[in-house]
Amino acid sequence: MQLISPIDSTFLLAESREHPLHVAGLQLFTPPADAGPEFARDTFEAMRARQELTPTFRKRPAAALGGISNVAWTFDDDVDMDYHVRRSALPTSGRARELLELTSRLHGTLLDRHRPLWEMHLIEGLNDGRFAIYTKMHHAVVDGVSALNLLQGSLSADADDHEVQAPWSVPPRETAYPATSRGRFEKLTGTMQSAVRHASSTVTLGRAALLEQQLTLPFRAPRTMLNVPIGGARRCAAQSWSLDRIKDVKNAAGVTVNDVVLAMCAGALKSYLTENDAMPDAPLIAMVPVNLRTAKDADGGNVASAVLCNLATNVEDPAQRLATIQASMRDNKAVLSQLPRAQAIAMGLSTTLGPAVLSTLPGLGGVTPPSFNLCISNVPGVQNPLYRNGARLDGNYPMSMVVDGQALNITLATSADSLDFGLVGCRRAVPHLQRLLGHLETSLKDLERAVGL
Amino acid sequence: MQLISPIDSTFLLAESREHPLHVAGLQLFTPPADAGPEFARDTFEAMRARQELTPTFRKRPAAALGGISNVAWTFDDDVDMDYHVRRSALPTSGRARELLELTSRLHGTLLDRHRPLWEMHLIEGLNDGRFAIYTKMHHAVVDGVSALNLLQGSLSADADDHEVQAPWSVPPRETAYPATSRGRFEKLTGTMQSAVRHASSTVTLGRAALLEQQLTLPFRAPRTMLNVPIGGARRCAAQSWSLDRIKDVKNAAGVTVNDVVLAMCAGALKSYLTENDAMPDAPLIAMVPVNLRTAKDADGGNVASAVLCNLATNVEDPAQRLATIQASMRDNKAVLSQLPRAQAIAMGLSTTLGPAVLSTLPGLGGVTPPSFNLCISNVPGVQNPLYRNGARLDGNYPMSMVVDGQALNITLATSADSLDFGLVGCRRAVPHLQRLLGHLETSLKDLERAVGL
Repeated sequence: MQLISPIDSTFLLAESREHPLHVAGLQLFTPPADAGPEFARDTFEAMRARQELTPTFRKRPAAALGGISNVAWTFDDDVDMDYHVRRSALPTSGRARELLELTSRLHGTLLDRHRPLWEMHLIEGLNDGRFAIYTKMHHAVVDGVSALNLLQGSLSADADDHEVQAPWSVPPRETAYPATSRGRFEKLTGTMQSAVRHASSTVTLGRAALLEQQLTLPFRAPRTMLNVPIGGARRCAAQSWSLDRIKDVKNAAGVTVNDVVLAMCAGALKSYLTENDAMPDAPLIAMVPVNLRTAKDADGGNVASAVLCNLATNVEDPAQRLATIQASMRDNKAVLSQLPRAQAIAMGLSTTLGPAVLSTLPGLGGVTPPSFNLCISNVPGVQNPLYRNGARLDGNYPMSMVVDGQALNITLATSADSLDFGLVGCRRAVPHLQRLLGHLETSLKDLERAVGL
Repeated sequence: MQLISPIDSTFLLAESREHPLHVAGLQLFTPPADAGPEFARDTFEAMRARQELTPTFRKRPAAALGGISNVAWTFDDDVDMDYHVRRSALPTSGRARELLELTSRLHGTLLDRHRPLWEMHLIEGLNDGRFAIYTKMHHAVVDGVSALNLLQGSLSADADDHEVQAPWSVPPRETAYPATSRGRFEKLTGTMQSAVRHASSTVTLGRAALLEQQLTLPFRAPRTMLNVPIGGARRCAAQSWSLDRIKDVKNAAGVTVNDVVLAMCAGALKSYLTENDAMPDAPLIAMVPVNLRTAKDADGGNVASAVLCNLATNVEDPAQRLATIQASMRDNKAVLSQLPRAQAIAMGLSTTLGPAVLSTLPGLGGVTPPSFNLCISNVPGVQNPLYRNGARLDGNYPMSMVVDGQALNITLATSADSLDFGLVGCRRAVPHLQRLLGHLETSLKDLERAVGL
C-alpha cells in the first residue's frame, strides 16, 4: 500500500463515466522488409511475454470499506496480461479512417479500477502493411508527457535488436521531462510540497498567477462551442507534418517552432469555428504548457508551468496573427519568469491539471467563464529512429483528454523530422473533428505564403 | 419526455462502472453462396441506412439539473448512426476464440447515457467466411427476452429478401414473450401496477414468495465462488448443441427439455467448481425464469415468474441428478401455481430483476446469503430459418448480465433445431469461463450414457 498523492487522487475523484481521465499514445510501425505475415502477431506475443512489470503498471486503487478507495495504491503481483495486452483489427478497407474510428472508441471507454490502470492494443489490418499500437494509462498514474516517454522508452535505437521490450518492462528513464508525475512532485521545494498536499490551495495559488498573465491579454477567453459540458464519446484524429516546413516558416519569420505551431492551430481553429458558424469576436486563448527548467535544476529536477497565449483568431492576416502570437508568448513567458517560483509551478499544476481539478471544486466548475479555450501542448517526441522488433516507429501521436468546459485538446509530439499531431474531442461538442486536419494543412500553407515561401 | 418506470429507473440507478446493466445478443450469419467479399460491408451499410428509428432506439435519460437524471426519458430525433452502428474486425486467426474475446470486451463497456442506450457491432474477419453481429441494449430500455425478439424480428424468413431491416427499423412484434418490458408492465393488474410503482414493496412481496419455494428445497443456496462481488471486466462464451440430442435424453428419461438443460448445466457446474476446488457440500440452487401464461391471458398478456431449482450437484449419478432436478422443478412450479397471482408475478420481477434491485436496497446487498447461486434462463429462439440480406442466421447467443453476488449467468435460446448457449461471467470471479463449454458437452454425454443412449 502507498498513499495516493492529493493531485493524483483528484484525477480519480474527478473521473466519471462521461469524463475518462486517461492519456494515450497511438504509434504507427512499419515492419522490416523481410517481415512475414505473422510479424505483428509475433511482436505482440513477444511484448505480452514480458511479465515482470514495473510498479507503475502494477498499481491500482486499493479496496477499502467494501469499495474501491481513492486513498491508497495497492500493487498487483499477478497481473492478467491477457486482459491488459490486446489484439484488435481494422475492418475493410483498413484506412487511417478505420484506425481513427477504432482509436476513438478505445479512447472513450473507462479503465477498470479493479486492475492496474492501463491497456495496450496492437492493431492489425492497416491496408499499407503497417500496424499500430494504442496504449492508454490513467492520468492518476502518469501524466501525458511521462506516458509518451514510457512508450518511447521501450523502443530500441537498433533496427536489428529483436529483444522486444514493452512499456511495462523497462524502468522509467531520465529524459528531458520528468519520468513520472510522482518524480516531479518529489523534487519540489518544501513550499510546493505543502501546496501539492492541498490541491485546492494549489489551485488558488495557480489562479492568482493565471490572473497576472490574463492582464497582458487583450480580452478574456470568450465562451465558444469548445467550452461546454461534454458527453461520453470521443473522436480522435492524427496527422504528421514535416518539421522542415515548420522550420522554414520559423526562420523566415524569426519566431520559434512553437510559435509556428500555435499559428497553425490558430488558423485551423478560425476556419473550423467559422464553418460551424461559431467564431467569437474576441480571440481564442490557448493554454500552452512550458518547461521551467533553469541552471539551478541541473540535478535533473524539471518543473512544468503554463503560458496563456492570445491565438489572434480575430486577425485576418496570417503573418500578423503569427506576430501577435509570438508577442503574446514572449510577454507571458516574461510574466511567468517574474513570478515567485512556487507560484509559477502552482500555475502549471492548476492549469495543466486545471479543468479536471477545477470542476471538482465547489462553485467553480462550469460557472466561471473559461480561463482559456483549449490546451495546445507540444511535447518532445523521438529524436532518432526507433524500432520495435525491427519495425520502425513512423508515427507517434499523443492522445490527451477532454473535460467539461474543454471539449477539444491538441497535443503534438515533435520528433527529429516531424510533428505528430493528436487531436481529441468530445464527439458531440466537436463535430467532424477530422476536418481540423485539413484546416491545419491549409493554415500552414497560408503561413508559408505569408512569409514569402 | 416520458417518465421512467420505477423498475426501469432501478436499472439506471443500480448501474455503476463495475456493473454495466445491459443485455446483448451475438448472432452468427453465413453469407449466401454467391456473396462477394464486400457482402458483410454491404449488409452493414444497408442496415445503417435504416434511419427511421422506433422509439425504443431513440430514447435516453433526460438531462435535468445540469446532469443526467433517472426520472424521465427523452427521445432523440437526430441519432448519430455512425456512433451506434459500428464495424469491427477480428485479428488473426479469426477463430471463435478471437470472436469471444472481442465480445467480452464489448460486453464489459458502459453504454453512453448521453445517447440512446444501444450499440450494434458488425464483426468481420471470421476465418470460416461468416460474420457476426453483436447488439447491446440497456436493461432499463428492454429486458433480455424482448431484446432477443427485437434482434430476431428484423430478420426475414425469405432467403431472397434483400430489403434489409434492422432491429431499430421494425416495430416490435407480438411474440410468445412480451415485446418490451413496458408492454409487460402495462398489462399487469391494478394490484401489480401499484407494486411495480414501488420497486421495494415488489421486492418484499417477491421475497415472501421466494421463501415459500425455499421451504421445498433441501438446503439454502450455499455461498460459492459464483456468489461474490464482481469486477468490471467480463468473459463471454457461446456454443450450440443439437436439440435432437436433448430431446433423445428427454424422451428416454420422461422429463422436459428444460429439465435436461438444467441437468446439463448442473453437471457442468459440478465439474467446473470441482476443478476450481470450490465445490460446496450443499447443492447449487438455480433461479429459472418461467412463463406463467394461462387461458385467462388469451389477449396476449404474458407474465413471467421464476422457479428455484435444486441442481443436485451433491448427487454423483447423472440419472439421479436429472430426476432430482425434475422433481424440484415440478414441486416449485406447483408452489408457484398456488401463490396469489400478484405475488407470483412479484416473485418473477424481484428475482429476475432481483440481484440488481436487491443490491440497491439498504441492508440487503452482499449481506444476506444468496437466494440462489445463478440464473439459468431458457428463452425462445427462432423456429424457422431466418435471413438478413440472404445470409442465414445460424447462431443466436443471448448475453445477459452479471451483478454483485451473481458472477455467472447462463442464458440459452432454443430454436427449432439447436440450443444456443450464451455464458457471461465476471472475468476475475469466474476464471477460464470457456471451460464450462467443454463441461457442458461432457455433462450431456454423461446424461446420454445414463439414460441408455
